[in-house]
Amino acid sequence: MEFVTMAHGAGGAQTKRLIDEIFLSAFRNPALTADDAALLAVKKGRIAFTTDGFVVTPLFFPGGNIGKLSVCGTVNDLACMTARPLFISCSFIIEEGFEMEKLRMIADSMAQTARAAGIAFAAGDTKVVARGQCDGVYITTSGIGSVEQHTAPGGARAREGDALLVTGDIGRHGAAILAARGLYGVQTELESDCAPLWSLVEDLLKAAGPVHCLRDATRGGLATVLCEIAEQSGVTIELDEESIPVCDAAKGLCGLLGLEPLYLACEGRMAVILPQTRAQAALTALRQSRYGANAAVIGRVRSGRAGNVIVNTKIGGKRLLAPPSGELLPRIC
Amino acid sequence: MEFVTMAHGAGGAQTKRLIDEIFLSAFRNPALTADDAALLAVKKGRIAFTTDGFVVTPLFFPGGNIGKLSVCGTVNDLACMTARPLFISCSFIIEEGFEMEKLRMIADSMAQTARAAGIAFAAGDTKVVARGQCDGVYITTSGIGSVEQHTAPGGARAREGDALLVTGDIGRHGAAILAARGLYGVQTELESDCAPLWSLVEDLLKAAGPVHCLRDATRGGLATVLCEIAEQSGVTIELDEESIPVCDAAKGLCGLLGLEPLYLACEGRMAVILPQTRAQAALTALRQSRYGANAAVIGRVRSGRAGNVIVNTKIGGKRLLAPPSGELLPRIC
Repeated sequence: MEFVTMAHGAGGAQTKRLIDEIFLSAFRNPALTADDAALLAVKKGRIAFTTDGFVVTPLFFPGGNIGKLSVCGTVNDLACMTARPLFISCSFIIEEGFEMEKLRMIADSMAQTARAAGIAFAAGDTKVVARGQCDGVYITTSGIGSVEQHTAPGGARAREGDALLVTGDIGRHGAAILAARGLYGVQTELESDCAPLWSLVEDLLKAAGPVHCLRDATRGGLATVLCEIAEQSGVTIELDEESIPVCDAAKGLCGLLGLEPLYLACEGRMAVILPQTRAQAALTALRQSRYGANAAVIGRVRSGRAGNVIVNTKIGGKRLLAPPSGELLPRIC
Repeated sequence: MEFVTMAHGAGGAQTKRLIDEIFLSAFRNPALTADDAALLAVKKGRIAFTTDGFVVTPLFFPGGNIGKLSVCGTVNDLACMTARPLFISCSFIIEEGFEMEKLRMIADSMAQTARAAGIAFAAGDTKVVARGQCDGVYITTSGIGSVEQHTAPGGARAREGDALLVTGDIGRHGAAILAARGLYGVQTELESDCAPLWSLVEDLLKAAGPVHCLRDATRGGLATVLCEIAEQSGVTIELDEESIPVCDAAKGLCGLLGLEPLYLACEGRMAVILPQTRAQAALTALRQSRYGANAAVIGRVRSGRAGNVIVNTKIGGKRLLAPPSGELLPRIC
């Protein structure tokens, strides 16, 4: 078995070999050069630019791994701005002693996800730190996309009367990571919802026209995203608990551990807010799109106190959704 | 004293406070939004895109800290493609228990360096990992710039007859980090050469016209950069040892520890290759520019075996410079 050594991070012959054999062989494309920065042709217009660090544990989980996650995360952040994913960079911090074969699996998974999302690797970097200065591998990706919607969606654009949809059942990623840590002796068939959502957003925009808000419900879950939108837009958001899709396995795990699915991270689900008149067209398009089979209309934007998110519960009550606080679940992404 | 806790990385109220108080207060500008990606206007043309991870130890060293370094690294990678720095993203991985005040110093230093380089923060991310899963803080920056030179420079563009210049004395960063680690009981007044070089490149291009190669001599030092260029361009590069600027303090440290300054990292020095006829104009412009006072013509590109870098030694001999191999100095950047 081969392992990553400090020499692989020193910038010399071993670094070159590591990059050639693991990363270049997976990521090679015309945009990726050996120079200090990639040169990319852009059309005049607006680009979207985003970055995310990934420190998920465990590195491999049902439905994905840190590599797939790191590409999906950046693709989805671009998609949230209706930006067609164009170029991605990746920066690896690797712990000395990490298995080369695992690194290869992670890189291959990144390459496969990038191909599926139509995004090209344009730049990369590799650092190696000593044992105990990292937990296996951390990855930071950054992405560039071309913005397609004339007035881009934003957290401050929700308007009274808008409909709220979610593109699928929530909480799978968080629940899958929890189960994969094996801390609670829970057995489950849950897989993470981790997926690249550009094609879904493209289908949505084509069928339903411009959207007001588009946010992927990652760290902090759907609840966090909705609290942020309600705050930024100065509106109240109302949710119908009954209509929020949660799969049985996630529901079971949440019941067992006393968790609220609304706060569990998703890595392949978005909240969509758009005018009520186009909600049905949006729902139909989402359900027909890959990764959108379980999409649902789950609520609406209404007048009321700025920043409030109210849940109409199954038993006919109302409760206020608090913005998350404290430690929810460390290293979920 | 205040410390970073796992809750600061959970995506809730504490994360928001950390971002608002430390990062937003330092990085605020119109390009930086609370949405998933920044929206940036670009002119039609070519952009440069680059990323680098920073894991330097110690985090604070004479002449800089990991924050300043992380901005200079990305600015200089863009400048190497003659790209005017426009936008930068930063992703932090922070160890639980890290001092908040140190984080503030790092962020302030990043903001100051970015202002000096004319680059705007457009996106960011923060993750917190438990004690022992990181060594204080790691930072990954990515950058976007607009390419100014019609045919961009590249490692494969060195031509027989070209002149080779270096923009200042070499090895200061590597020597300063070595001394700062205090491993050898060495006392020195050396400061890192860490600096954002876009203005220097702009002055150079204005005075001397298009360049063939422009590379910053970071990890692996000037030797590594020259071996790469000689290899990529299929040429021999010849250096005159006597003309290579090395300050006395760096020379002294290298003598003491048996190191070769040519392999020591710089973070504010570039190798410049351009036609011999314009070497004098380039030298004059560099010496008048900030960060270029010690620039020198140090060699030439000639016919000979592809990939060879030959040093004409002070005592009249010749030696072949080997591409670096093995562990030079871990976590130098």
